[in-house]
This record gives sequence, structure tokens and C-alpha cells, in this order.
Amino acid sequence: MNAAATHAVLSAHPRASLDEAERQTASIDRSGYVPPSFADGVIFAQSIDDVVLAMKLAHEHGAVIVPRGAGTGLAAGSSAQAGQIVLDMSRMDKILHIDPVEATALVQPGVINAAVNQAAGEHGLFYAPDPASTAICSIGGNIATNAGGMWCAKYGVTRESVLSLLVVLPDGQLLRTGRRTIKGVAGYDMNALMIGSEGTLGIVVEALLRLRPKPKHTATLVAYFPDEDTAAQAASAVIAQRLTPSVLELMCGKTLKAVDAALGTEHESRGGALLLAQTDGYGAQLEMQALRDAIAPLAGRIELAKDAQEAEALIEARRQAIPSMEKLGTASICDIGVPRNRLAEAFAGLHRIQDERGVSIFTIAHAADGNLHPIIVVPEDQSITTGAPKAALGDMFYLAQSLGGTLTGEHGIGRLKQDWMAEELGETSLDLQRRVRAVFDPQGILNPGKAI
Amino acid sequence: MNAAATHAVLSAHPRASLDEAERQTASIDRSGYVPPSFADGVIFAQSIDDVVLAMKLAHEHGAVIVPRGAGTGLAAGSSAQAGQIVLDMSRMDKILHIDPVEATALVQPGVINAAVNQAAGEHGLFYAPDPASTAICSIGGNIATNAGGMWCAKYGVTRESVLSLLVVLPDGQLLRTGRRTIKGVAGYDMNALMIGSEGTLGIVVEALLRLRPKPKHTATLVAYFPDEDTAAQAASAVIAQRLTPSVLELMCGKTLKAVDAALGTEHESRGGALLLAQTDGYGAQLEMQALRDAIAPLAGRIELAKDAQEAEALIEARRQAIPSMEKLGTASICDIGVPRNRLAEAFAGLHRIQDERGVSIFTIAHAADGNLHPIIVVPEDQSITTGAPKAALGDMFYLAQSLGGTLTGEHGIGRLKQDWMAEELGETSLDLQRRVRAVFDPQGILNPGKAI
Ligand SMILES: Cc1cc2nc3c(=O)[nH]c(=O)nc-3n(C[C@H](O)[C@H](O)[C@H](O)COP(=O)(O)OP(=O)(O)OC[C@H]3O[C@@H](n4cnc5c(N)ncnc54)[C@H](O)[C@@H]3O)c2cc1C
Ligand SMILES: Cc1cc2nc3c(=O)[nH]c(=O)nc-3n(C[C@H](O)[C@H](O)[C@H](O)COP(=O)(O)OP(=O)(O)OC[C@H]3O[C@@H](n4cnc5c(N)ncnc54)[C@H](O)[C@@H]3O)c2cc1C
Repeated sequence: MNAAATHAVLSAHPRASLDEAERQTASIDRSGYVPPSFADGVIFAQSIDDVVLAMKLAHEHGAVIVPRGAGTGLAAGSSAQAGQIVLDMSRMDKILHIDPVEATALVQPGVINAAVNQAAGEHGLFYAPDPASTAICSIGGNIATNAGGMWCAKYGVTRESVLSLLVVLPDGQLLRTGRRTIKGVAGYDMNALMIGSEGTLGIVVEALLRLRPKPKHTATLVAYFPDEDTAAQAASAVIAQRLTPSVLELMCGKTLKAVDAALGTEHESRGGALLLAQTDGYGAQLEMQALRDAIAPLAGRIELAKDAQEAEALIEARRQAIPSMEKLGTASICDIGVPRNRLAEAFAGLHRIQDERGVSIFTIAHAADGNLHPIIVVPEDQSITTGAPKAALGDMFYLAQSLGGTLTGEHGIGRLKQDWMAEELGETSLDLQRRVRAVFDPQGILNPGKAI
Repeated sequence: MNAAATHAVLSAHPRASLDEAERQTASIDRSGYVPPSFADGVIFAQSIDDVVLAMKLAHEHGAVIVPRGAGTGLAAGSSAQAGQIVLDMSRMDKILHIDPVEATALVQPGVINAAVNQAAGEHGLFYAPDPASTAICSIGGNIATNAGGMWCAKYGVTRESVLSLLVVLPDGQLLRTGRRTIKGVAGYDMNALMIGSEGTLGIVVEALLRLRPKPKHTATLVAYFPDEDTAAQAASAVIAQRLTPSVLELMCGKTLKAVDAALGTEHESRGGALLLAQTDGYGAQLEMQALRDAIAPLAGRIELAKDAQEAEALIEARRQAIPSMEKLGTASICDIGVPRNRLAEAFAGLHRIQDERGVSIFTIAHAADGNLHPIIVVPEDQSITTGAPKAALGDMFYLAQSLGGTLTGEHGIGRLKQDWMAEELGETSLDLQRRVRAVFDPQGILNPGKAI
């Protein structure tokens, strides 16, 4: 793992760049983590062959490769430093084929999530796992992090929408995982093993995605509550009433204020917390009526979207939540998950942490799945990786674990959450996982120091 | 792997039995595969400690353990022979806890699938993956095979309904996989790796299942078609119309005849093939209307269930399909999967095989997922594992693979389908999987010769 090895690879690969600006850009993602130095070079893959060559060379020379999609990750999974080469997949960005009858899309990994959704939309289909970063993140990154999004409440995360992958292994061999059929149980689930593995087991070079029928009908509602705890209770009431909204997002009062400032909206004047809910399918209106009945006793103002445009505006407000906060300073985005019936306890815990650590916490949540994003925002000139913000982050992980939850619902471990991993997984599991990793990558050349 | 080893384990374990009848029963499942000899003994586990002890002893002595649930498997996954010990999990059959708010069930592995569904039903919930064998198969077996069922069309297979597992590893250590939350991406997906691993990576001793809200409304329809090809086209029309039925089952004419004979129904007089469809949710009736419109141009008689009882009767006919055939002889149940838009081609291929091999093939299909069960039935005194039936089975696997499909959609590879595995997975994948297996079971003491 040294400069000689990386330079041997970089000088032999036709797509390598040593440009300083490119090396810097390619070494950081959106997590706020700043590596101690920058990668020795970047390889901009344009074909499967480029990736195979990169891995064969790396394998031969023992050079470290860090796969990178669009660099929007929030766990420093694609961050790189000296002695490493970034393998940038963003130029392999084509949609190779859409099969409208079978409802699948065959894509290259660098394609932007929103581009897939747009192409699918032309056939009355959609790709369900769309993160709030849909306009800027890549499918390869989504697969490597098992990304979630608003529609996961009903349609599941990335894992539920990837049928098959073509992967370049650390030694340059090609592996196909999964299958073209919806169901199949021949062999171990190598597809699921790849999904969420944060670029540590292989490089995804092609993916067969499952598309879903675009709901013919949707109903969208926004409800305002006096505070987050009441909004969380309302979310639990929706679950308890056995409703299955396709979207159930919670935004805290501080977030509303930030969104208002960024978008010129007026959410904050209407309540101290907001729930955004969507139902879909042939019974969308009826189910929304039931949802409204379930939350009405707790809610203040309730607004139903009159048409698709109004609905899209409400959803856009949620998508802009993180960018809006980022305008206020540097954001450290936490990603804890708790059992759904402990949502209110999670909010109480976050309030406690905020008070005790004297930090400013904005919270948005995929409420139907118990996945919360408590976001610490500090002024641009302060660091989120030291002092009170860092301590608060640790508190949050322990909070999640004490509620029977997890330290990451959808963003991954990356480099950022290494310290808290062992606690969550336990030694037996971690040891097994390390040995599974070694089966794929005995040399330890693929994204070392990340994930497990 | 010898008699000395197995006997050392059997004589040291308080739950071991050497009873001949028990050894015989425990050595075969419902696949029709008859092992050359029977297991040396059976351990009837009643607790996690029993399982840990069994594996510790086996690990120490190098004895082979074959996990067994209810023995309803169709791939000889739990079949055993001399030099092996069956670890019978059927007595660990308790539902430990149902959390109605969180919609989860914590169960022991030996619990019967239908028992979970009944207990869930009391809380307005259901467990979605219910195989046709629901009344007789165990959750542990379902997990080990990643079992499917009628509701998979909308709700996914077992993998989509298992949140977390407690597993005893081959060396007797305890491993927890997955998590209590709906979402979570810390570490590799060891949960998915266990699911469908056919008892080769560890023994499932506890499972946290995800329950789903019982749909408040359902609509059920049966449509008769002149033949299977037309019924398959109708199924494709349903998919093409972007409908999402919760059930879409196809039964061929021969199957209808067998069901009529067994249940006293009169399906066959109404058509040469049948589609059973159910929609659910707040828009169940409206979606069923759209489904009816989609298939009407192709269908003969269409019957809508008037009430829940009529719907249940229709579904029961499907559940009884395999038992009805089994009354006619020994059934060899194939389990191929094809892309959904190639369903009609699959039927054409099956007709060809039937003619060429001179065998009698009954076919039922989970049509919405492209998962077909072509079933070869031979008189009791003939064998299905040799001659024309065996050749026909091979033809079916090649048919599936030539259509871009898989040789097993939900039953697993077990012992039965070993010969065709390499072809489907390829050497790179198979080799990786073998090495992953060795991480869990370096001695090769857990269910050797099965799955991969
Ligand atoms: C404003 C904003 C909102 C966000 N909202 C969400 C959200 O709602 N849900 C959510 O889940 N995430 C969200 N994220 C986080 C981020 O967008 C996701 O993690 C996304 O999946 C990362 O994709 P990427 O292409 O940017 O990957 P990168 O950041 O480049 O990489 C992420 C990981 O994937 C690996 N990787 C990338 N490409 C490949 C490949 N081809 N093969 C193998 N490994 C690869 C990298 O090594 C790294 O470990 C958000 C981020 C931002 C900035
Ligand atoms: C009439 C009939 C209809 C059927 N319909 C369907 C259907 O619709 N869908 C479907 O998927 N299957 C169906 N099957 C097949 C069968 O019921 C399933 O494969 C079921 O999941 C097997 O469960 P079991 O408890 O009987 O497992 P077994 O047959 O005992 O074992 C199956 C596999 O699981 C392993 N195993 C069992 N318990 C454990 C445990 N606790 N830990 C680790 N490994 C374990 C065994 O080693 C073996 O490899 C049907 C079978 C019959 C007879």
C-alpha cells in the first residue's frame, strides 16, 4: 500500500489522471469528513474493460482502489487519501435498456438516480428507492450503500429493487449476482451481499433494476403539529391504524424554518413540526381519508394537495431539507434507525442531547420506517468532527442502540462511523464479516478502512 | 465424517434418539428423493442450548449435522443418510412474542407457518410469505429455503419479511443477523446471506418476522381460459397494464381435473386453464375491475368471489393443487423461474417436453413473478429420479435457463438439483460461494452435499 504501487497502476492505465484539482475533488464526499491528504490519482472509467484493467493492475501491484460514484455519500465511504487511487465511475452513466413489459432497467453504475426515474416514467414505471439526493447521486453509489428514499415506506430500499449485478472483483474477475427473474434461490444471496457493501467487495459495473408501476392515483397531505413529539405520535398512529402510506416524512420546526428561508415557503408559521404523507394506488383517496382521521386528533392544520403539482411542491420541500440546512453552516447528518414504536422516545432523547451538548440539532425522519436524520449544523468555521458535535454524534448512536436500533439506516458506515461499529455488530459477527471480506479481497486492496 | 463421530455426538446429547422409525422419517422430505441409507440418529432440539450443544459436539468430533424443520421440502435439502445426524427443530415451535404496534413476531424456528399467521391475524396483521404448504411447513425451513407463496406477487418472499435471526454457527457460537428496525445498513447483509442458505451456514434458532397490515379490503376473481397459453397471455396482460395483484396464480387443465377429483369441485368443466387473482387495499374493487378489463378479451367465464368465504374457497383450491396431484401418483415438483414476459414461451416449451419425453406434466404458476411449478406425476410404482421423468426434469432446467431464468424460484437446490447448479451460477460465483461457506463451516459438517 504505497506510492510506488499506486504510481505503477496510474502510469499503466490510459484513463488515469494526476491532476491536483481532480485528485482533491475525488477524495471527499458530502459527509464533512476531510481526509488527512488526497488520493495519488483518479481513474475515470468509461467501460467495463477500464475497470477490469484497473483492478488487474491494482491486484498485481498491491495498490489500494477506492470506488467512487457521484461523491454525495454522507459516511465518507468514497473518501480517499495518499497511497490510494480513486476509481471514478461517474462517466459510465448510460441507461442501456429499459424493458417496459418486464419492468426492468439495465444501467451503468454512474447513471444518476433521477435519470433512471425519468426514463422509467416514459413507460408508466418508476424506480422506487429515490434518495433525497436523487438529482445528484449515482445508482452505483445507491447500490453500494443500499440507499433509501421517501418511497421506501411502501416499496422497500435499494435491495428490494436490484435484480442482478455485474461486478468486477478485486482480482479483476467478473461476477454476476442475482438473476433476471423476480424470484430465485439458487445459491447464496450474493446480490444482497454486494448491496450495501460500500465498495469493499467489488466494483458494480452494471445493474439490472426492478421498476414498479407508477401508481395511477396518489393523494398527498401535509399536517402541522405543535411539536415533534406530537408529530411522532401521529406517525405511530398511522402505523397502528394499519395504514400503508407510500411516503411518511417528518420535519422538525427548525428544519421548517431552514426550508422557509431557502425556498420562500411559510411552513414554520403553521406549526412546530410537519408530517408529509402520501398514499397511492386505486384506493389512494380512501386511504388518505383514513390517514387523516388517524392523525386529526393530534394535528393542527391539515392540507391536502389539490393536484399533482401541489403534491410535488410539498415533496420538493422535503427534498430540499438538507440543502437548506447546509446553507446555514456545515451539516453533520446522522442516520439512526429505531423500532417504529419508539419514535417519540428517540425525539425525547435527541432533545436531551441537544440541551446537554449545547449543539443545534435539526431532525427529519422517514417516519414509517423509524429512520431519523438528526442533523447537527455548525457555523462554517467550526468543525463537526471534534468537540461537542462529535460527542453529540456519539450520544445519538448510543441513543439508537439503547432503543434497540441501529447507527445507520441508509447512509452506511463508511469511514465516519467506524468507532461505533463493533458495539452494534458484536465480535462474532464482525469477525465473520471480516473473513467474508477476505474471501473477496484477500489482499485488502478495495476500500480499506471503510464499512466493516 | 464417520459412524464413530456421529455416535460420539449421539451418545453425549440428552435429546438424541436412535429409534429406527424416527431415523427413517427424519431422513426424507417431500421431494421424492430417497437417500441410499438413513441417518445414524436424530436430535430433537427443545432449546437453543440443545442446538448449541449439538453443534459443539459435532464440531469437536467432526460429525455431520443435517438441520430439519418440518420435512416438507421439495429439494431434498433435509434428506440425510448414514454417517449423518438429523437435527430436528420441530419441537422448538413457540411464538415468543407478537408486537402489534411494531408489527413483528418473535418466533422459534419450528413453529408452523400457519400458526404465525393465525396469531398475527388476531392483531389485524399477517405474515406475507405463506407457501401452499402453510399448514405443514416450519418458519425455519421457510427461512432456509427463502420460501415463496401466493402473496409474494405483492409482498415479496421470505427475505422481505425477516428482520433478524439468531443463528447457531457450525462451531456452536451464537450469531445475530439483521436488526429490529425496518431499515439498517451497518455491515454486510448477513441476514440475507442466511436466508435461502438451506441449512449450510448455521442453524436458525430464533427469528424476528415482519408482519404486515391485513388488507382491509380484498377482491378475488377466478377466470377460465381455453388453454394455458391464453391464461399465460392474460397474466402478462395484467403485468403490462401495471396492475399489482396480491395473488396471480395459474393452474393448467390437468391440475383442475386433479383438484376436481380431490375436492369435488367443477373447475375443469369451465375451461382448460384458470387464473386466480386477488387485489387488496382501499382500492381493491376498483383495481379488480381494471384487472377484469385487462383479461376479459382473452377469458371465457369469469367469476368474482361474493364474500371472504368464497374467496377463501378459491384460494384453498390452489393450495390443494399439489396434494391433489399427489393422490394420482408420485409427484416430482419442478420450480423454474422465467422473466415474466416469457411465460407463454415457457408453457410452449413444457408442452414440447411433455410430448418428447412422454411424461405427464401438471403445471401451476405464481404467474406475477414468472415462477412455474411443472409437476411430473408417475404411478406409485415408478420412479421419478430415473428414466424419462429425470430427463424431462433436466429439459425443464435447460428450458428455464434458455429463457434467461432460473432452475429454482423458491424450493432451493438441496440435494436434488446439484447437477444443474454450476451451469446456472458459473464457476466464479460457485467458487466464491464455496469459500464463503468455508468461512462459516471450515470443517464441512453442516449439511454437506446440499445447496452449493
Ligand atoms: C442532500 C443529500 C440528501 C441525501 N439523501 C439521502 C437519502 O434520502 N437516502 C439515502 O440513502 N442517502 C441520502 N444521501 C446520501 C447519498 O446520496 C447516498 O449515500 C448515495 O447512495 C451515494 O451515492 P453516490 O453515487 O454519491 O456514491 P459515493 O458517495 O460516491 O459513494 C458511496 C459509497 O459507494 C461506493 N461506490 C460508489 N460507486 C460504486 C460502484 N460502482 N461500485 C462499488 N462501490 C461503489 C463508494 O466506495 C462509497 O463507499 C443524501 C446525500 C445528500 C448530499
Ligand atoms: C404440498 C406442498 C406445497 C408446497 N408449496 C410451496 C410453496 O408454495 N412455496 C414454497 O416456497 N415451497 C413450497 N413447498 C416446499 C416446502 O414446504 C418449503 O420449502 C418449506 O420452506 C420447507 O419447510 P420445512 O420446515 O418443511 O423444511 P425442511 O424440508 O425440513 O427443510 C428445508 C431446508 O431447510 C433447512 N432447515 C430447516 N430448518 C432449519 C433451521 N431451523 N435452520 C437452518 N436450516 C433449516 C433444511 O436443512 C433444508 O435444507 C411445498 C411443499 C409441499 C409438500
